[in-house]
Parts: sequence; C-alpha cells; structure tokens
Amino acid sequence: MVKEEQRPFGELIPYEEALDLIMENVQTIKRKEKVKVGDSFKRVLAEDVTSEIFVPPFERAAMDGYAVKAEDTFGAEKFDPIKLECIDELHAGDVPRNKIDDGKCIQIATGAPLPEGADAVVKVERTERDEKSGPVNIYKPVHPGENVSPQGEDIEEGELVLKKDKVLTSSKVGALAAMGKEEVEVYEKPIVGIIPTGDEVVPLDQELEPGKIYDVNSYTLSCVVDDNGCEPVSKRVVQDTIEGLKEEIKEEVKKRDMVLFSGGSSVGDKDILIDALASLGEVIFHGVKIKPGKPTLFGIVEDTPVIGMPGYPTSCLNTAQQLIKPALRKMARQPEPPEKRTEAVLQKRITSSLGRRQYMTVRLEGKKAYPVYKQSGAITSMARADGYFMIAENKELVEKGEKVSVVLY
Amino acid sequence: MVKEEQRPFGELIPYEEALDLIMENVQTIKRKEKVKVGDSFKRVLAEDVTSEIFVPPFERAAMDGYAVKAEDTFGAEKFDPIKLECIDELHAGDVPRNKIDDGKCIQIATGAPLPEGADAVVKVERTERDEKSGPVNIYKPVHPGENVSPQGEDIEEGELVLKKDKVLTSSKVGALAAMGKEEVEVYEKPIVGIIPTGDEVVPLDQELEPGKIYDVNSYTLSCVVDDNGCEPVSKRVVQDTIEGLKEEIKEEVKKRDMVLFSGGSSVGDKDILIDALASLGEVIFHGVKIKPGKPTLFGIVEDTPVIGMPGYPTSCLNTAQQLIKPALRKMARQPEPPEKRTEAVLQKRITSSLGRRQYMTVRLEGKKAYPVYKQSGAITSMARADGYFMIAENKELVEKGEKVSVVLY
Repeated sequence: MVKEEQRPFGELIPYEEALDLIMENVQTIKRKEKVKVGDSFKRVLAEDVTSEIFVPPFERAAMDGYAVKAEDTFGAEKFDPIKLECIDELHAGDVPRNKIDDGKCIQIATGAPLPEGADAVVKVERTERDEKSGPVNIYKPVHPGENVSPQGEDIEEGELVLKKDKVLTSSKVGALAAMGKEEVEVYEKPIVGIIPTGDEVVPLDQELEPGKIYDVNSYTLSCVVDDNGCEPVSKRVVQDTIEGLKEEIKEEVKKRDMVLFSGGSSVGDKDILIDALASLGEVIFHGVKIKPGKPTLFGIVEDTPVIGMPGYPTSCLNTAQQLIKPALRKMARQPEPPEKRTEAVLQKRITSSLGRRQYMTVRLEGKKAYPVYKQSGAITSMARADGYFMIAENKELVEKGEKVSVVLY
Repeated sequence: MVKEEQRPFGELIPYEEALDLIMENVQTIKRKEKVKVGDSFKRVLAEDVTSEIFVPPFERAAMDGYAVKAEDTFGAEKFDPIKLECIDELHAGDVPRNKIDDGKCIQIATGAPLPEGADAVVKVERTERDEKSGPVNIYKPVHPGENVSPQGEDIEEGELVLKKDKVLTSSKVGALAAMGKEEVEVYEKPIVGIIPTGDEVVPLDQELEPGKIYDVNSYTLSCVVDDNGCEPVSKRVVQDTIEGLKEEIKEEVKKRDMVLFSGGSSVGDKDILIDALASLGEVIFHGVKIKPGKPTLFGIVEDTPVIGMPGYPTSCLNTAQQLIKPALRKMARQPEPPEKRTEAVLQKRITSSLGRRQYMTVRLEGKKAYPVYKQSGAITSMARADGYFMIAENKELVEKGEKVSVVLY
C-alpha cells in the first residue's frame, strides 16, 4: 500500500461550512491611509467626517432676482406693483458692497451672498424694470426668508456628515468636496498575494514548451481580487517543492492580508502545499462539496489566511467567486453587492452529482438558458457563459424545460 | 424691459427627448490601443481573438492514476484485478520519456501529457499497488479516452474564442491567458473634459474667501465618468467670461470626446455658456423637465458634445446619472448595467411639480423609505440617501404609505 503517495481528500465539507470557516478566519482591514478626495471614490471611509465650515458658508440667493427687505414688498399686486430703487448688483462670487435700506433693493444672481439688510429675494419673473437705471416693479410680495438659502442650510459647522465604514459613493465624495476636505482617511486595500504553482505552468511572456500550459489563474484571481476592493500582487510561477513552498508561505504571510496559491491543491503525489501549510500553521479544511471547486484548501499561518485554490481554471475562478469573494469583501469592508439574477428556461437536461453543490454555466438567449459547461479544466466553460445556476446538493437532475434562476456575471 | 439680462429658458423638453437627443449625438469610441492582458479587465475588446494554439496544447491526464492502453484493462474486476507493470511516472510539466507497450502502465498526475501508446487513465482509487516497484492492480476497466483531456478540448487552434465589442470579464481575461496572449487590442477609454466654471467656485486647495464656495461638481462628475468606462480629465476652475469660455471650448473639443461644464447654465445674467456655445457650434437644447436638473444645456461643437451641467451639486449629479451616464456608456461601448431596485413604503407625503419628472432621494430602513431631499443645492440630499424614486411628470402627489420603487445607489 502506497496510498499516501496519491493522497485522497479528507472528508469534504459542505459549501456553507467552508464559507463560514473562511469568513470566521479573515479579519477586516485595520490599516488606514490618507488619500486625496479626488482619489477616494469607492474607498471605505476610516474616520467620521465632521464639517469645519458651514455649507453654504454664507446666506445666499436661491433664485435670480432682487434682494429685498421682505416687508417692503408687502401689499405688492399684479396691477399695483411696489417700486424699489435698485442700488447695486451682485453676482455669484461677489462680496456685498452695500446694505439695503428701506425702499431699496439689489439685483442678485443665484448663489450670490445676500447683502446686509435684505432678508428675501423676489424672483426675476415677478418683477419688471423699465430701464437699467430705473426703479424695479415688484408684482408679488415675499415673506422673510423666501428664495434665500440660509448659511449652513446643507451642512452645519461641526456637523457629523459622513460616518466611518461607509463606502464613498459619488455623492459622498461630493460632500467631502463641499466641506473643503482635501484629503480623507480611508482603510487601506487589503493586499492579496497570488502565487501560481505547478511545474507545468508558465507565465505569458515565456515560450510554451512541450508538456507546459499557460498560467491562467493568476490573471483571473487578480480580476476577482481587484473587483472586490483588494489589491492583487501576483508572483511569477513558483516551482512545486515543499521547501520552496514553505519559503513562499513564510515570506508572503508577513506581507499580505491573504495568500492565494493556485494549483497544487489536487490529490496528486505532488500535492505538497498541504504539507507545507500543515508544517507552518493550521489546515482548517481540504475539500469542499462543490463542483467545480472541490480541491480547495484553507489554512492559517501566522494569522494570515492561506488558500490553495484548485488548479483547473474554471474550478479556480468558480471557487474564487463562491468562497473567496465574500472573504475579500469582508477584509476590505465592502458591502456585499446585490446579485443580478434572471429567470430562464433550461434548454437541455442536466445531471448533477448527489452530495455536491454544482454550478452550471449557461449562455442566455432571451429567457432560454443553454448549458455551456464543458469541464472544470476549460476556461471557455465560463468565458462563453452569461451566468450560472446552482444545482443543490440533494438534486441529481434538472429537466429540460425547468425554470432556473441564473446569476449573471 | 431688460429681460434679456436675466434670460429665461426656452421651452423645456421632456426627459426622454433630452436623452434621445444626447444619445443620437454621441459617438461610440473608435480609437484602439494595445494593453497587457493583466491590464485588460473590464476593457472592451476591439478585435476578434482567435487562438494560435490548442488549449490544452496536448492530450493530458484528467485524473491522477495510471496511463494505460484501455484494452489492457478490459475484464478487470473488483475481486479479479488485472496486473500491469508500471514503467515510469509522469508529473504535470513532464515530457513523456517512455511509450506504453502491452501490459504496461505509467503512473500519471492530473495535467501530465499522456504517454505514447496510452489512450486512457485508470483513476488511482480503482487501483492498488503493494509496493512502489511492484505491479499495479487494476480493479475496473476503462474505455479508450476515459479520464483523458484531448488536445484542444477547451480551445481549438484557429478557433474564434472571443468576439470584439465584448467587455472583458474575469473569465474572458482567463481565456486570453489560456491562449498565451500577452497583449490584446481594446478600445481606448473616451476622454471626458470636466470644466468647473463660476466666479464663486474655488478648488479644494484654496482658502475659502467670502462669497466663495468649494468646487463639488468636478469631483462628483469625475466619479460618474470613471464609473462608466470613460477617463475624466478635470480642469481647474475657469472664470466666467464669454471669451474665456470660448477659448476653453475650442481647446477642449479638439482633445476630448465629450466636454462637461459645470455651473454657468442657469438663467442668471452671467449665463454666458449658451452664448459661447451658440457662437462656436449648435445648441441642441437648453432646459429639461426634470427636477433636480432643469438647467441642462446640450450642444455640439466640431462634432464633440458639449454639455452645460447645472451648477447646484445635487442637480448636477442627478443629471449626470440620468442623462450623461447612458451617453458615457454608449461612447465607451459599455453595456447598460442592470438597475438595482427595491420596493419600499414611503413614510412621508411628497408633493411634486406637475410637468416635471422629479427624482426624490430617500434613506431606507428595511422596507421603509424616508425622503432626504432638501434642495438641489444640498449635496447631502444625495450623500445621505440610499437611492431615489421617480415621480412621473403627470403626478403631483405621492401619499404617505404608498409603495415606491427605489433605485439603489
């Protein structure tokens, strides 16, 4: 018996258990950094932001028209206007030069500061003026405060405007700008090391020699890491020796918030990642009841999650989306995005493995779903798909004509 | 009568008409560029991609086990195994050194090239071996091709794998890598010039003098441009003079695929962008029946769309999302993303302007929607909102307790 040289998995664990174990063992990022507000879009705020100014900083006209003392307009009527003398004009950006006394007004543009003495603005549509220097006819009274934006109408000085842990959307970036913040403190993006392994795998800039294949998983994993608020740092292909892998792990866990190995987690006799992991830290699980994605390995070394991803491209990418994406988002403090789903009718009968949750990729034509899954080694199983539907662990068969709920990529 | 100094809008046009006019007048990007596959995620493919290699490049083992001639295993049974002599072992990345003759087998790992003479792999679970040098007991027959991935199983040499105009998802990036493409041709990102105007507006790195406010719209517009597949290029605040604006327009339309001016499109006497636009090109519309967002100006100068965005921050950002976002995505060849919506119950009665489509921002607590809209000048109208619902042109009132369909930010 030399079974150990081609070691089988331990007991496979269900998807939910695997996800729970990963989620429990990844930490939200705590490191912070200052970034320019212009670079803060989609970052996660690491501080409560309180305004040091009023927004708007001063009382201003909310309409184009004439700044007045409201009581001077009382009694104005359509056929019996009140006449006010216009003593100045104010554009946005101007500083008022004159104050308004009884019977006077100042022409004012939206956004310009209200002059002293004024407490309302009469809209230009409610006025008429015979000539530039002549009096202004006011056809409708205004009440104090009408068409005026008070100082601090939007934001008060000292007001808590944005709470930490929120993702900076375009309008929140706008709020930072409105308060005149040049920089803002955000959480760093967690750094995820991506290490392709396998003696058969070569980087894209190398010639493809016999027996070799191109590295796919570093590229797809980088996309998933990047798309979920983390920073991918890919290594060149690492050769499969236990000492080499141990060195890699020791080096990487010091520098990264998570380490993803691709390849090397199957059950071949060269499956040495699990030994390297076990000798340096703790193996939490090896093998998940999902298809594709079974040979996923999860461990912890010096508090850093180290994950052995399946080597087959579709297996690797599916596992990344099902198990790693929620963990990346937790680390990065990014909320789970809502899934985009559509109902469709399956156009071909599909059999599935009892006891394993299966992800079946499909191409959509309107409401028709055509399976495109070839096998877990085929990246085109996903590259040609519009989405996937899930076949539960206890289901063996999905009939042609059945309705399926397709998660769109 | 000096009405012209505070010019009213022309006739406002409905939202759909404004959107149609913008969409008709923006062009999809035609410029292409080569990028590294590692930088191609989310870009739009500008070429059909045909594979120059088979993927996998060679016939290979799909399981760990023993490479055999299938006919040598015929008749193997659980209690009457067939014994084969193991003459070599092959790991992934190896080049086969030996061929298989009758009665022989070679131990093989998943992904290793199938040796000459073999046409199937017996899974390791169906075998037993007493010692490393001894014969291998085969307990179950395999048929020719079993557990073997043929050359080109995923992708054939010469096969058209990815079609142009598709967005490069993670799996499509993976397909490019599998084919060994180092670079790929994608469409350039359309470049959108963003020009804040207004004598009252100052950049974030300047001291706020009396009468001035901080530039908000450049920041929010940059987010929207960036988020929709285009490249924002922001200018510092430009002062409002007709000659200055004309110079800006002339310079920008030469370099940009779209030019967004923020501010300067209201009806104040300093509203000179429309004059500058009209003198250099064609004004398509000025004023849209939406709230916030009415004072939107759209024109064409030398085939380049030039848009005067409303100056008020929430007005500007709402217009960007309702009218500019679809145009940005058309230019960038990015498909319209599905809207994320949720049903909620309005917690407060809202009145709306008949004849204008109104966007009412709300904060959500579970299924309860609380209006947070202050006014179009308040960026917190959006920064504190989780989404918005739309009140149609012909509706004056939404009652407390009514169900509304909230579009999530």
